Amino acid sequence: MIVVMKPDATPEQVQHVCEKVKELGLTPHVSKGVERTVIGIIGEEDKIRAKPLEVFPGVESVTPIQKPYKLASRHFKHEPTVIEMGNGATIGGKKVAVMAGPCSVEGRDMLINVAKEVHQAGALFLRGGAFKPRTSPYSFQGLGEEGLKLLREAADKEGMLVVTEVMDTRTVELVSRYADMLQIGARNMQNFDLLKEAGMSKKPVLLKRGLSATISELILSAEYLLAKGNFKVALCERGIRTFETATRNTIDINAIPVLKQETHLPVIVDPSHGTGKWEYVIPIARSAIAAGADGLMIEVHPNPEEALSDGPQSLIPKKFRRLMQEIRPIAEAVGRQV
Amino acid sequence: MIVVMKPDATPEQVQHVCEKVKELGLTPHVSKGVERTVIGIIGEEDKIRAKPLEVFPGVESVTPIQKPYKLASRHFKHEPTVIEMGNGATIGGKKVAVMAGPCSVEGRDMLINVAKEVHQAGALFLRGGAFKPRTSPYSFQGLGEEGLKLLREAADKEGMLVVTEVMDTRTVELVSRYADMLQIGARNMQNFDLLKEAGMSKKPVLLKRGLSATISELILSAEYLLAKGNFKVALCERGIRTFETATRNTIDINAIPVLKQETHLPVIVDPSHGTGKWEYVIPIARSAIAAGADGLMIEVHPNPEEALSDGPQSLIPKKFRRLMQEIRPIAEAVGRQV
Amino acid sequence: MIVVMKPDATPEQVQHVCEKVKELGLTPHVSKGVERTVIGIIGEEDKIRAKPLEVFPGVESVTPIQKPYKLASRHFKHEPTVIEMGNGATIGGKKVAVMAGPCSVEGRDMLINVAKEVHQAGALFLRGGAFKPRTSPYSFQGLGEEGLKLLREAADKEGMLVVTEVMDTRTVELVSRYADMLQIGARNMQNFDLLKEAGMSKKPVLLKRGLSATISELILSAEYLLAKGNFKVALCERGIRTFETATRNTIDINAIPVLKQETHLPVIVDPSHGTGKWEYVIPIARSAIAAGADGLMIEVHPNPEEALSDGPQSLIPKKFRRLMQEIRPIAEAVGRQV
Amino acid sequence: MIVVMKPDATPEQVQHVCEKVKELGLTPHVSKGVERTVIGIIGEEDKIRAKPLEVFPGVESVTPIQKPYKLASRHFKHEPTVIEMGNGATIGGKKVAVMAGPCSVEGRDMLINVAKEVHQAGALFLRGGAFKPRTSPYSFQGLGEEGLKLLREAADKEGMLVVTEVMDTRTVELVSRYADMLQIGARNMQNFDLLKEAGMSKKPVLLKRGLSATISELILSAEYLLAKGNFKVALCERGIRTFETATRNTIDINAIPVLKQETHLPVIVDPSHGTGKWEYVIPIARSAIAAGADGLMIEVHPNPEEALSDGPQSLIPKKFRRLMQEIRPIAEAVGRQV
Repeated sequence: MIVVMKPDATPEQVQHVCEKVKELGLTPHVSKGVERTVIGIIGEEDKIRAKPLEVFPGVESVTPIQKPYKLASRHFKHEPTVIEMGNGATIGGKKVAVMAGPCSVEGRDMLINVAKEVHQAGALFLRGGAFKPRTSPYSFQGLGEEGLKLLREAADKEGMLVVTEVMDTRTVELVSRYADMLQIGARNMQNFDLLKEAGMSKKPVLLKRGLSATISELILSAEYLLAKGNFKVALCERGIRTFETATRNTIDINAIPVLKQETHLPVIVDPSHGTGKWEYVIPIARSAIAAGADGLMIEVHPNPEEALSDGPQSLIPKKFRRLMQEIRPIAEAVGRQV
Repeated sequence: MIVVMKPDATPEQVQHVCEKVKELGLTPHVSKGVERTVIGIIGEEDKIRAKPLEVFPGVESVTPIQKPYKLASRHFKHEPTVIEMGNGATIGGKKVAVMAGPCSVEGRDMLINVAKEVHQAGALFLRGGAFKPRTSPYSFQGLGEEGLKLLREAADKEGMLVVTEVMDTRTVELVSRYADMLQIGARNMQNFDLLKEAGMSKKPVLLKRGLSATISELILSAEYLLAKGNFKVALCERGIRTFETATRNTIDINAIPVLKQETHLPVIVDPSHGTGKWEYVIPIARSAIAAGADGLMIEVHPNPEEALSDGPQSLIPKKFRRLMQEIRPIAEAVGRQV
Repeated sequence: MIVVMKPDATPEQVQHVCEKVKELGLTPHVSKGVERTVIGIIGEEDKIRAKPLEVFPGVESVTPIQKPYKLASRHFKHEPTVIEMGNGATIGGKKVAVMAGPCSVEGRDMLINVAKEVHQAGALFLRGGAFKPRTSPYSFQGLGEEGLKLLREAADKEGMLVVTEVMDTRTVELVSRYADMLQIGARNMQNFDLLKEAGMSKKPVLLKRGLSATISELILSAEYLLAKGNFKVALCERGIRTFETATRNTIDINAIPVLKQETHLPVIVDPSHGTGKWEYVIPIARSAIAAGADGLMIEVHPNPEEALSDGPQSLIPKKFRRLMQEIRPIAEAVGRQV
Repeated sequence: MIVVMKPDATPEQVQHVCEKVKELGLTPHVSKGVERTVIGIIGEEDKIRAKPLEVFPGVESVTPIQKPYKLASRHFKHEPTVIEMGNGATIGGKKVAVMAGPCSVEGRDMLINVAKEVHQAGALFLRGGAFKPRTSPYSFQGLGEEGLKLLREAADKEGMLVVTEVMDTRTVELVSRYADMLQIGARNMQNFDLLKEAGMSKKPVLLKRGLSATISELILSAEYLLAKGNFKVALCERGIRTFETATRNTIDINAIPVLKQETHLPVIVDPSHGTGKWEYVIPIARSAIAAGADGLMIEVHPNPEEALSDGPQSLIPKKFRRLMQEIRPIAEAVGRQV
């Protein structure tokens, strides 16, 4: 941690900071310049992170030099994490993990139909919402447990894995009974009680980046899961909120190489929510794989005109097959398989 | 709702949209122009909002004309809401509601001391966190129920009201036992299960705007509370996330007149979280009152050097007294009292 | 400047950085910690700012500790700058500087009429665009020199000062002939050749903050003017671009106390462009004065229905008089006059 | 254009809007609903775009239905534009256009060396700045005409094309004498006088997207060029400003498919400025090609440690060769050539 003192800071003020630092078991190094004095603090930064040195008299700024995350960090674990999902499926391995299905579970026949279509096209994970976070209280809120049962049934018929969202600490156990992977949605990325519960479950977790979450905050939310002993965590870029309105959100493709450098966790990209328009889903899926993503999450609906949510961004099964064809050579170009 | 068809849309495509509209019990009005056809949909927009008309063949864009919120809307209730808190305190009335106290409840003596200081200066609400949403799992997470007890004790000593955050559906009942007003934090603004639980409690709720929430989304989250029958809701502007880093967040002062125009709910401003630096808290507090805010939430700590959270943005009691003095003539200038 | 080395940086890499630092006449201070080595660089940071130390082998990050601006800085000049405009008008003094008038100069009679109205209400500066920066090439581009003549005539009739935008290096001289103050618009805040020309003129300059400019970048653009010897510079906050669309832009009220702390230059706020809707102009004007702004720039049009630009955000003269009445007690509350 | 009236709008107010519409030669279609009246305006929207209907009494909102750009629109010209550059090079054709070179022209030997390196690796365009837009007046401002001469010489030696930035209306002619393609930088995207001058020159133009420019605004700035008769325009995505600070800017990959759908102009991506860190340049270059970009602009410097600007984001020639190798199979996967 680097403490920069104000130009007019007194020697007593410098002394005061140094004493506090020593009290915490760290070592201050003072560098006196012409204009300013700088104090470098050597040792475990965690001990001092909670101390608001910014408010000490004479302090101008405080800059941490260590990353605030540990277990999720690439320094902590050099090898990329490969989540073994059963069924031979993995996330983070050579094979690109493809998760596909409707935004919401709407009914049995539709779901079984979609599962079959996306499985034949190459998806090993069936996605679908049983509990839906909706901006308006008047929108369809999901089928709840009934939806979970349908997901399990449809996935089992095809030998697929279920990934579905959990929104409430009280339903983590329920969702875990049906799902192979728990999804924590963008709006709940900093619902810390939910993270703790999901961390204590043994289920793999797909953690979506919040609309206005920095990459560092996303990794810190993953740290909540890892700190509870659950290391089967995949991160999901699904678009951030910017001033641009031509797309629903702005997929931050840059986050892929940044996350790959900072953490050992696999990275999934969701171009359906990221763009909000089906026309853009295929090119963004291609670009995600080219940038190094470990997988994709894609909304597929047999009849988007009748979808109860997110119709505009859903691919019909035929387009989904085209997506799978188009990402194949890209995946090969970067040493992956589809 | 206005549906604009693509320049090359066929008459059959126009017809197809119109039929769907009629099926839902609404009336389409077709206007054929030189370049494009436009379909105006008259009737209760809610019925069609869930239908993804964007994906119908030939459709270029769909624009809603009605607001998605109802109960929170100024059209629904013209008179501004005044929340009666007991003790003669109100939120939304002539008197500016001032909520002050430490970021976190850290201990008994400190809290009793702060409560006394801020009460003498004019604050009727004691704020303080017992459950703390922290970005890192390694930061202080709050004292939990012990913190709630201390808040109640300190407030009772002074005849103050307690406002404190609830983060988890499972603790709504517990927090309600001690608090006079439940705070839903920025990170939980779209934790819809929590909103539903808070809506079902009878407690007044202070709903903070999410870091990347639009004003419309904030009102829709309030709508979740109102739709459960709880109309004692105050909205809190606490800064949004923008590219600017000179302040921790960017207080959106514009939101005050916008919210006043769109809803009947009172508006509180939190300049401590909004700016992240105590130096800016007083001028922003003045500007909030000048813009028409109904109240302020201010972090006060007797010794920010030792604060367990948010030290840099906390005022010492002496500065808080100055804040109260400085907002008084501003409040009078806009027809309010402090 | 603080250089943090990577955990696996070699002693040779540390040495290499230190040598480069010494070569430039500065002194490196090396602090070796358990995890990392940190190099503090003491001396004039400017010398090394241009050196991309980030790319030196073994370097993880580089953090400047000095501000990049000098002449505009409060460290350089403690006393606030007061621009003497002639006619007894000042910017940055006790009296709030009010600039008002139409968005564009549209015709003689209208302009003379508006000038009279706003002057009677208390504005000493007449604003109006003769050269208009328009997003679309098909929008009204301004009357050019004819517009400048009309501005001069209308202002002279009332004994007012003219502030008007200059967009092109080639017209700085022309605009200077008619105007008392040159305005550099938000889109040109980083048109560096224009800044240099305006810096070389002797005219006071009103520099508007770019839509996505940080406060630091705004001050650096002012530094371009000051570095050419022109110290008569006022900064203008006019709203930044964020995700919020309820207002045209988001006025960054926080920028007022930040700019006041960082620089000695006066700060003007433009609530008309900042909000984009006349309904919000008055409350935001009040909040700007309450936060410590030195002046306001307000669009006034006698008949917004017929305005050639920015009609929706223009006040009619009657509303402008109300604005002046409402800011008066606020100004007094903060020790200013209107 | 769609005009939505307020719930309490009077028949006279509806009438007043209709009359104004007819006066302008357009046809209003009135749809009366239970809650609101909507007026659809049929005809050339341009005629009415300048009229501030928002301020007419009783009007709640105004929504345009036609795009504000014409010549740049895909509706106006269905075929993608292919810019013939001479030397057999094109932009927008099957072959990916690669522009590479140093950020600034710093000296003769370095430039000749870089040109040779990037040409051998496959770049046909030499980039380099002679006039540099720098945030601080104290940074290196470029070599000016001397730099242009060096660029021409180095490019001619290799049979390459020169693309370089023009910042000032007064130097458009000078830069045109040396360059094959004029670059208009992000900070000047809305320097409308510069756009007009560049539009009047016969040179191809590379127009970079502003840091906070919407896609629609970028296209409108291109429209300024096209409206002056210059159709040889390529658009460049180089990152937008968001809250994320892990990268210098946020490359908006989504803009590629959006621009491809909205306009016929070729799209170039600049991952060097977009990310600000050389480590991320190669993955983002791959993703840009995968998403459908027509070309890349890459900063290459033989010795980034000594670069006078943008060292941290420059590739050394060896890394640039690797970039070219890595994009080749991606380009083939999307039907292009490198």
